[in-house]
Amino acid sequence: MKLLIINGPNLNLLGKREPGVYGVASAESIFEELQREYPDVVLEYFQSNIEGELIDAIQKADGLFDGVVLNAGGYTHTSVALRDAIAAVGVDVVEVHISNVLSREEFRHTSLIGGVCRGSIAGFGPDSYRLAVDYFVKRK
Amino acid sequence: MKLLIINGPNLNLLGKREPGVYGVASAESIFEELQREYPDVVLEYFQSNIEGELIDAIQKADGLFDGVVLNAGGYTHTSVALRDAIAAVGVDVVEVHISNVLSREEFRHTSLIGGVCRGSIAGFGPDSYRLAVDYFVKRK
Amino acid sequence: MKLLIINGPNLNLLGKREPGVYGVASAESIFEELQREYPDVVLEYFQSNIEGELIDAIQKADGLFDGVVLNAGGYTHTSVALRDAIAAVGVDVVEVHISNVLSREEFRHTSLIGGVCRGSIAGFGPDSYRLAVDYFVKRK
Amino acid sequence: MKLLIINGPNLNLLGKREPGVYGVASAESIFEELQREYPDVVLEYFQSNIEGELIDAIQKADGLFDGVVLNAGGYTHTSVALRDAIAAVGVDVVEVHISNVLSREEFRHTSLIGGVCRGSIAGFGPDSYRLAVDYFVKRK
Amino acid sequence: MKLLIINGPNLNLLGKREPGVYGVASAESIFEELQREYPDVVLEYFQSNIEGELIDAIQKADGLFDGVVLNAGGYTHTSVALRDAIAAVGVDVVEVHISNVLSREEFRHTSLIGGVCRGSIAGFGPDSYRLAVDYFVKRK
Amino acid sequence: MKLLIINGPNLNLLGKREPGVYGVASAESIFEELQREYPDVVLEYFQSNIEGELIDAIQKADGLFDGVVLNAGGYTHTSVALRDAIAAVGVDVVEVHISNVLSREEFRHTSLIGGVCRGSIAGFGPDSYRLAVDYFVKRK
Amino acid sequence: MKLLIINGPNLNLLGKREPGVYGVASAESIFEELQREYPDVVLEYFQSNIEGELIDAIQKADGLFDGVVLNAGGYTHTSVALRDAIAAVGVDVVEVHISNVLSREEFRHTSLIGGVCRGSIAGFGPDSYRLAVDYFVKRK
Amino acid sequence: MKLLIINGPNLNLLGKREPGVYGVASAESIFEELQREYPDVVLEYFQSNIEGELIDAIQKADGLFDGVVLNAGGYTHTSVALRDAIAAVGVDVVEVHISNVLSREEFRHTSLIGGVCRGSIAGFGPDSYRLAVDYFVKRK
Amino acid sequence: MKLLIINGPNLNLLGKREPGVYGVASAESIFEELQREYPDVVLEYFQSNIEGELIDAIQKADGLFDGVVLNAGGYTHTSVALRDAIAAVGVDVVEVHISNVLSREEFRHTSLIGGVCRGSIAGFGPDSYRLAVDYFVKRK
Amino acid sequence: MKLLIINGPNLNLLGKREPGVYGVASAESIFEELQREYPDVVLEYFQSNIEGELIDAIQKADGLFDGVVLNAGGYTHTSVALRDAIAAVGVDVVEVHISNVLSREEFRHTSLIGGVCRGSIAGFGPDSYRLAVDYFVKRK
Amino acid sequence: MKLLIINGPNLNLLGKREPGVYGVASAESIFEELQREYPDVVLEYFQSNIEGELIDAIQKADGLFDGVVLNAGGYTHTSVALRDAIAAVGVDVVEVHISNVLSREEFRHTSLIGGVCRGSIAGFGPDSYRLAVDYFVKRK
Amino acid sequence: MKLLIINGPNLNLLGKREPGVYGVASAESIFEELQREYPDVVLEYFQSNIEGELIDAIQKADGLFDGVVLNAGGYTHTSVALRDAIAAVGVDVVEVHISNVLSREEFRHTSLIGGVCRGSIAGFGPDSYRLAVDYFVKRK
Repeated sequence: MKLLIINGPNLNLLGKREPGVYGVASAESIFEELQREYPDVVLEYFQSNIEGELIDAIQKADGLFDGVVLNAGGYTHTSVALRDAIAAVGVDVVEVHISNVLSREEFRHTSLIGGVCRGSIAGFGPDSYRLAVDYFVKRK
Repeated sequence: MKLLIINGPNLNLLGKREPGVYGVASAESIFEELQREYPDVVLEYFQSNIEGELIDAIQKADGLFDGVVLNAGGYTHTSVALRDAIAAVGVDVVEVHISNVLSREEFRHTSLIGGVCRGSIAGFGPDSYRLAVDYFVKRK
Repeated sequence: MKLLIINGPNLNLLGKREPGVYGVASAESIFEELQREYPDVVLEYFQSNIEGELIDAIQKADGLFDGVVLNAGGYTHTSVALRDAIAAVGVDVVEVHISNVLSREEFRHTSLIGGVCRGSIAGFGPDSYRLAVDYFVKRK
Repeated sequence: MKLLIINGPNLNLLGKREPGVYGVASAESIFEELQREYPDVVLEYFQSNIEGELIDAIQKADGLFDGVVLNAGGYTHTSVALRDAIAAVGVDVVEVHISNVLSREEFRHTSLIGGVCRGSIAGFGPDSYRLAVDYFVKRK
Repeated sequence: MKLLIINGPNLNLLGKREPGVYGVASAESIFEELQREYPDVVLEYFQSNIEGELIDAIQKADGLFDGVVLNAGGYTHTSVALRDAIAAVGVDVVEVHISNVLSREEFRHTSLIGGVCRGSIAGFGPDSYRLAVDYFVKRK
Repeated sequence: MKLLIINGPNLNLLGKREPGVYGVASAESIFEELQREYPDVVLEYFQSNIEGELIDAIQKADGLFDGVVLNAGGYTHTSVALRDAIAAVGVDVVEVHISNVLSREEFRHTSLIGGVCRGSIAGFGPDSYRLAVDYFVKRK
Repeated sequence: MKLLIINGPNLNLLGKREPGVYGVASAESIFEELQREYPDVVLEYFQSNIEGELIDAIQKADGLFDGVVLNAGGYTHTSVALRDAIAAVGVDVVEVHISNVLSREEFRHTSLIGGVCRGSIAGFGPDSYRLAVDYFVKRK
Repeated sequence: MKLLIINGPNLNLLGKREPGVYGVASAESIFEELQREYPDVVLEYFQSNIEGELIDAIQKADGLFDGVVLNAGGYTHTSVALRDAIAAVGVDVVEVHISNVLSREEFRHTSLIGGVCRGSIAGFGPDSYRLAVDYFVKRK
Repeated sequence: MKLLIINGPNLNLLGKREPGVYGVASAESIFEELQREYPDVVLEYFQSNIEGELIDAIQKADGLFDGVVLNAGGYTHTSVALRDAIAAVGVDVVEVHISNVLSREEFRHTSLIGGVCRGSIAGFGPDSYRLAVDYFVKRK
Repeated sequence: MKLLIINGPNLNLLGKREPGVYGVASAESIFEELQREYPDVVLEYFQSNIEGELIDAIQKADGLFDGVVLNAGGYTHTSVALRDAIAAVGVDVVEVHISNVLSREEFRHTSLIGGVCRGSIAGFGPDSYRLAVDYFVKRK
Repeated sequence: MKLLIINGPNLNLLGKREPGVYGVASAESIFEELQREYPDVVLEYFQSNIEGELIDAIQKADGLFDGVVLNAGGYTHTSVALRDAIAAVGVDVVEVHISNVLSREEFRHTSLIGGVCRGSIAGFGPDSYRLAVDYFVKRK
Repeated sequence: MKLLIINGPNLNLLGKREPGVYGVASAESIFEELQREYPDVVLEYFQSNIEGELIDAIQKADGLFDGVVLNAGGYTHTSVALRDAIAAVGVDVVEVHISNVLSREEFRHTSLIGGVCRGSIAGFGPDSYRLAVDYFVKRK
């Protein structure tokens, strides 16, 4: 099994950015930990602050990966283009968020991408990624 | 570890109700399977179609369980009272949905309870319950 | 032919409650009259002020009745859970209202349940029930 | 008893228009059947695609008919002028719809005319007309 | 000076229609009285319940009349087409209403035509027409 | 007959303020002209930029004047307090506007006071005042 | 004088639930204190988390009590059915809230029941109940 | 104890203004009665129709009074400036209304000031003032 | 190939009406030019200001024409009835507009008919008609 | 004549992406076909998933091309920046869409860019591009 | 150069009012400091809690000052009348706010006056005033 | 002191783009002039049309610059991702706009980024940049 984890804008700052909201673990440590927990899964990781590069990554995952774990960050709430990319590809995408978006600003309560994802997981800190990986590994 | 799984209105019909949306597994089979996967966790199960009985259940879970997995069904979108119950108790509640609520009717896109839950998991079919249990078991 | 007539909140007060809006006939007299008019139809009657008990009643009607006549009262405008119950069962449900809801407060202009009912009848006083029964009896 | 049945825009296409929504019976066959069922009632029938001609018809019905059965079609959702005509005349008007308007597009969920009609009947196919006639015949 | 007074839908019922709102004077008596008050003004009068005929009348007034007094009735609140007709012609149009539309239903608070009229007069009963005529006669 | 003309905020600048919108005549010249046209009417004039002083003026007019002509300027769209004053007094108030408020910014399309005035006149330049006076003089 | 105090969902947790918002006094201690302050008033107390049981209680109070003090908790903002119950009975109901609902989440700023209550009291902590009782005792 | 009672716009007309809504007691008689009921409290009274003078009064009350009872009338629904004044001062302000604002026009359902007041009391006629005074006297 | 070009309200004024918006060519000259460009296509032309006559024309086109080019003018934004006519017939309809509706008033940004047309063309002046004809001629 | 065809996000997947919506032709085949139909026009083609690169392309087209054909994909509905680019350059831009955006999700009914384009063409499949090219070629 | 600094409601409390939001400097000390920094500019200062007096001040500044620095406080969000005053005068007005209004309550995100001011400066504490003065001094 | 000036989409066209709105000065000349005015400040300049590159720039400024002056252009109104970047970094960001965004289209009245910036400056042409620099230089 081969999964692509895509992180959107500002998630390269994990561990430094608003630690009260996003926690103190860096993206690197989160994914190293994740790899340790799922040694039999090939995990690849991609991050970009550029909306179109996230779209590129989703498009390219089609056929190469068994699933995509996507934290689209701020683009979650504004990007029809990202939604279209997810709807266009054959690979299942799971939406994840570190923070509980429903307990934050009103504009974070809308997800333009959730409706075309396989499912959504939000609010569990770094565990959100783990649960998404776990879904792909154990579903059948 | 002791977890309470609470199912709200119409989830007693799982397996019979709109199988295209909710799948063909009955609630009983889902929870038996779940218990098999997590033999070391004490899983209790409660279902009611009555909003106030769900509130009662959440209140009573406080102090007796290590976590609550709540599928509030149709009350998810309309119940301030349920939200208040979750906010009032000390036990962590995880919101789950079997279907991908964001790909359904507009009125299902709002969750009044999500903002006071620990996190939300939606769209994975019966796996949504498993992921919620998994969260409680492995978090630390 | 066997029909279940379900009355929601406050409809136990018919004849006493705001007679200018709801008329002076009690629920009992309305259904006795109805039974007289349709002697060959088995009419059963259920009333509850509790949303979840209305859901229970709809669920149980499935397979036992040829149709349900539902006056959901105030839950008409607020209950996704009731809507889900109607959508979940195989039996046809007809929505009725005694008063003309469209000539009353704005919040009564929305019906969350109408879209999943077989049809809706509103504004004819006690005749609304009779027309619903008539529909089930004569349709073909 | 003398009743006027008024059909609004595109209802002249009944039987040909979107049969999945409106059924396969033509307007003619529906009203012939209706006359057979109510041989003692004088039923007249008027159809127009022109909003103002529907208003004319409602105005002229005043004093000549004991009731009006009105399927205003698409004008239901947009016509204040039609509403004003109904409010202006002394004859009772019953709003009918063949399809279940609440299960269709959002803009069909609003009825500008329902609030000034005697009552509304929607979703029963051609039976909607029959129920409206039945109301006028049996009420009292 | 030559003025065209155009009355829209249901205004042919003046004197009979909701006299509490529209008064007891018929359209005929109002315009006879008006002609008596302004003997030097040529007053013509047109009424139709058909939106498109009102548009026709406005178009034809261009070049033949010094002004148009328009009571568009229910079309006031819904007709972009009427607005376009007023904007298209060179003759000044004054919007009038018999009743005080701002003290009635919410949907009467919007005028689609007012913004392209010379001005608006509402709420003075039959005097609304007289004031509009007076405007054309005395302006300079 | 005794009428009070009340001008609200910024109308003391008439003739100087945005002449393309409000014309070149000063308030003084408008009211001198008006007095000349209606020599038998006692016209008094009050202007203030202070909302509460306009309320005071309306209150005091009660019993002393046969009518009030009110151009509430910018308070038209925002003042519940002014509306309450008009509703509280026994004297009839006519709302006037120099410009055509419906052809200007969206926030000018709402009048909080119009619904409790006797009627409204807008868009005729200084003639708006004259028509309001004319209404009071000739009505009966 | 006989008053019924009805507490809605989660108010059984008073003293334990979000003490920063609701205070540290339990419901029991509040009502004992209240009885001490009004020894001549018969105070009865009812609490339920079930919307329909609150409706039942209001219906039954009619004729038996001189007044009802109602803290509907989260149902305040969502329950048309509760509103209908209050409007249906002859006994006066006073709406109370412990916290200042207007300083909390947007969805708490709407009260569906306030408009049919005798009056509303909010924000005074346990004193809100006392003021409501005081109203019934001293009004005349 | 020293309390300032502030009445906003049009409340100087109490007893004369819309008695069906506001009752027949004048402000003077209400406050004389109130003083008789609370002989040990120093009650001062201020009324103005001018928003800014109400702000002045609130500012000046700070440090001189133990509490302010504020009926802001029509400014309740529109004044951010009044809200800011209440938030700026150290003295507790209680919002009162004579009528039940929630049973009146939609624009009266919003209170811009309630969220920064100690609490709100509405709908009890002159008793609303008494209850507010009673709150200040008995709280502790 | 046989195409019907239908023009809605006020488009009979082309060349005279707001030339800055709609250009200086008359409808006649536009369609003569069009016929010259497509000599092998039978072009018929119909114009009416009456909504219902446009509906009639669309209904009649079914079976007689290979396509309809429809400029519904002001009815574009308000007519559910016209939408229903287009959805009811088998012939493809192409929506055209001379002006760029998206750069004009907000109420012109909504097209009720576009969603049931084959496609939409707007903003190219008389070329909008030509492009629509071209579509029908060359598609396949 | 030299035209630039710009395709936005996910349009590189044409032929593979949701063929029921977007058809089975690849972008390459569409533009080869187009070049064959217009051999005398220099057609250049640019695609990017990155919003800012589309802006770059529009900026660079200014002065080098006689027109731009822009299918902005999902950015159509969300990009003020793209709108600003179109408004900033001197070259005419024509908006095209392959699918009928008005018959899809609500959020696709808004075009932020249409109002500053020369015109819009939507719903004709690959023909939408051809019609846009045809407009540039034949306009005069 | 002569500038008028106008402070609206509650800004007389600077230094005392919500110091966490507005800082600890009094208005006096802010303007003394400002005068020291710009010794060659004549700075006058006006404060009022009364909306109409702010309008008076803006009107009077016309012709006497080279610019106005306006902190309209709470009236910023509600006053059309203030907007009209700014639009009516020839002198440039710069809108300033001490706090960052966009990070506060939703109702503070709208400025009715900003659109007719020369520009807006918000969020810099007392520096907001200095920057506005600096603009007037150095622009050209 | 070291400041980074970041310009978003289309601001590379300054001097060429809509000069009536944005002025005739190029970005280069504006920043050369700025450097001349503040010779002791190290000014760096970055422009990109790509949202994600603006995010990159803001992230990289953290720790290297004493402040950021950000004109986000069209992304101001649509970018949650940009907002998140500003909130994530420790360096103060000042929002600037050349034009008065509040006097332009409705969709420019919302700033998603302003609430997390230190402050906002809009409408002063190139002076907006100077004032932002001046803020950083003189604050203390």
